[in-house]
Amino acid sequence: MKKINRVAIVGGTHGNEFTGAYLAKKFDKFPEIVKRDSFETLTLLANPKALQAVKRYVDQDLNRCFASKDLQNPSLNGYEPNRAKEINQMLGPKGNPKFDFILDLHTTTANMGLSFIFVRNDPFNLKLAAYLSSIDPSLKVYSWIDPGKEQNFINSISEKGFAIEIGPIAPGTLKADIFQKTEKLTQAVLDYLDKYNQGQIPDEKMPLTVYQHCKYLDYPKTAAGELNGMIHPQLQGRDYEELQPGDPLFLTLDGNTIYYEQEKPLNPVFINEVAYYEKGIAMCLTKKEQIYV
Amino acid sequence: MKKINRVAIVGGTHGNEFTGAYLAKKFDKFPEIVKRDSFETLTLLANPKALQAVKRYVDQDLNRCFASKDLQNPSLNGYEPNRAKEINQMLGPKGNPKFDFILDLHTTTANMGLSFIFVRNDPFNLKLAAYLSSIDPSLKVYSWIDPGKEQNFINSISEKGFAIEIGPIAPGTLKADIFQKTEKLTQAVLDYLDKYNQGQIPDEKMPLTVYQHCKYLDYPKTAAGELNGMIHPQLQGRDYEELQPGDPLFLTLDGNTIYYEQEKPLNPVFINEVAYYEKGIAMCLTKKEQIYV
Repeated sequence: MKKINRVAIVGGTHGNEFTGAYLAKKFDKFPEIVKRDSFETLTLLANPKALQAVKRYVDQDLNRCFASKDLQNPSLNGYEPNRAKEINQMLGPKGNPKFDFILDLHTTTANMGLSFIFVRNDPFNLKLAAYLSSIDPSLKVYSWIDPGKEQNFINSISEKGFAIEIGPIAPGTLKADIFQKTEKLTQAVLDYLDKYNQGQIPDEKMPLTVYQHCKYLDYPKTAAGELNGMIHPQLQGRDYEELQPGDPLFLTLDGNTIYYEQEKPLNPVFINEVAYYEKGIAMCLTKKEQIYV
Repeated sequence: MKKINRVAIVGGTHGNEFTGAYLAKKFDKFPEIVKRDSFETLTLLANPKALQAVKRYVDQDLNRCFASKDLQNPSLNGYEPNRAKEINQMLGPKGNPKFDFILDLHTTTANMGLSFIFVRNDPFNLKLAAYLSSIDPSLKVYSWIDPGKEQNFINSISEKGFAIEIGPIAPGTLKADIFQKTEKLTQAVLDYLDKYNQGQIPDEKMPLTVYQHCKYLDYPKTAAGELNGMIHPQLQGRDYEELQPGDPLFLTLDGNTIYYEQEKPLNPVFINEVAYYEKGIAMCLTKKEQIYV
């Protein structure tokens, strides 16, 4: 068994996601909250310039800047690409990182409750998730793996770790219940890592539900590419629930309903996430799988 | 009785409040929706540059640019001050406007449901609100009059009219239920104006609950002026409900509770509105009054 030696808790990767940013500030001020005996903990405010500007990013999305070729490209300009290189020096380098485990704190306007976002289906991560979701069954796991594409999230620096995603909450705001839930789940993750290091995690298979990424759906657009509709009222807020063929997806500005016309049911997540409008993503479709880990 | 001759429906005064902006686009595309026989209707997308940038404003808050001295100040720079002058030419001039009635469509991250925001307690506006809230009792009226200060909202151009404010919704997103409710209420306002012009509004006193503006409360701050807390979980989402002396107001990052220590109960609105963080407003405190109009 390889122990976890260094844990990084990252907040404010997106500058307008205040929950993670202010939790990072809190942990920085009160380091005893995130201190554990069996490993070293670092708290990192990832994008201070975007936080100050109350924007997701200044030049480009920091959490899409960690592809190896971009980290190694000296001519890549902009605040976030440079910041990614700094963070990669600090926590990485990607593939051979100084930090074994990275926990990245995010929020969403989608009704995703408390979720883990995996960038790889690492057995360690899966086992941790199975353990914590056995304690809190409302905890969800979205495995966001785009087949054939190198992962470019900050979590791709290390094999172990993931993002906590929580919503719904508007960017640029704090909400006490969401702040407290994220803090509590962060504590639970740290406690798990500490127990793991001390050999206290039982070595038995546990069930886990994983929502495996399949594909993206964009909003209805006009011929000129302008937004021409919204999530259908019957779908809004129903992240992780099963979408059946024939279910309503969108309501256009003209009042027409667009239906889900795939042959098989899938489970949408990130429904109506504000930051994905510009990425052309109205929701991510996933396949719900039950596994034993 | 003076008839209403011209009505302006304004959306996107704040560029990231998509509901109003996309309703304005919809009304522009399908003008028959907002057409009535007894008056002329104009649809105005107030801040197209901010909408394109998905920002509340480009240079400064357009809905604070309509003070007379600012409209008359030729040396005032910036996109919104200039746009305010254009709009004042189009709909106004303030005090002697071409448009008798201005309806300005807004959204908020606060849990305010459907609200009317008055910038003056004009008898016509009050009577309209009493009539519509007799049909839908969930409709609220916040009379946002800062004593001793000239009103600088777009609605201050004309005596009649007000803003529709609806929430909670994150800026930069559309939500079908909020879109539909705003459209329905806009229709109800237009129908009222049409009935009024045709002498079909009964001339009888009706009850109306008005939340009169009293003062602002800011978030807890550090000595350096940095945000150091959030709305208390027991208060979050409870807009318009009575706040009693001794009730919790804020939770600091350190986990301490700050209580409401005024002598008299007041009713908070705009609790945790995202755009007011930078204005130093955590909520607006109002006095609930029952009147007959």
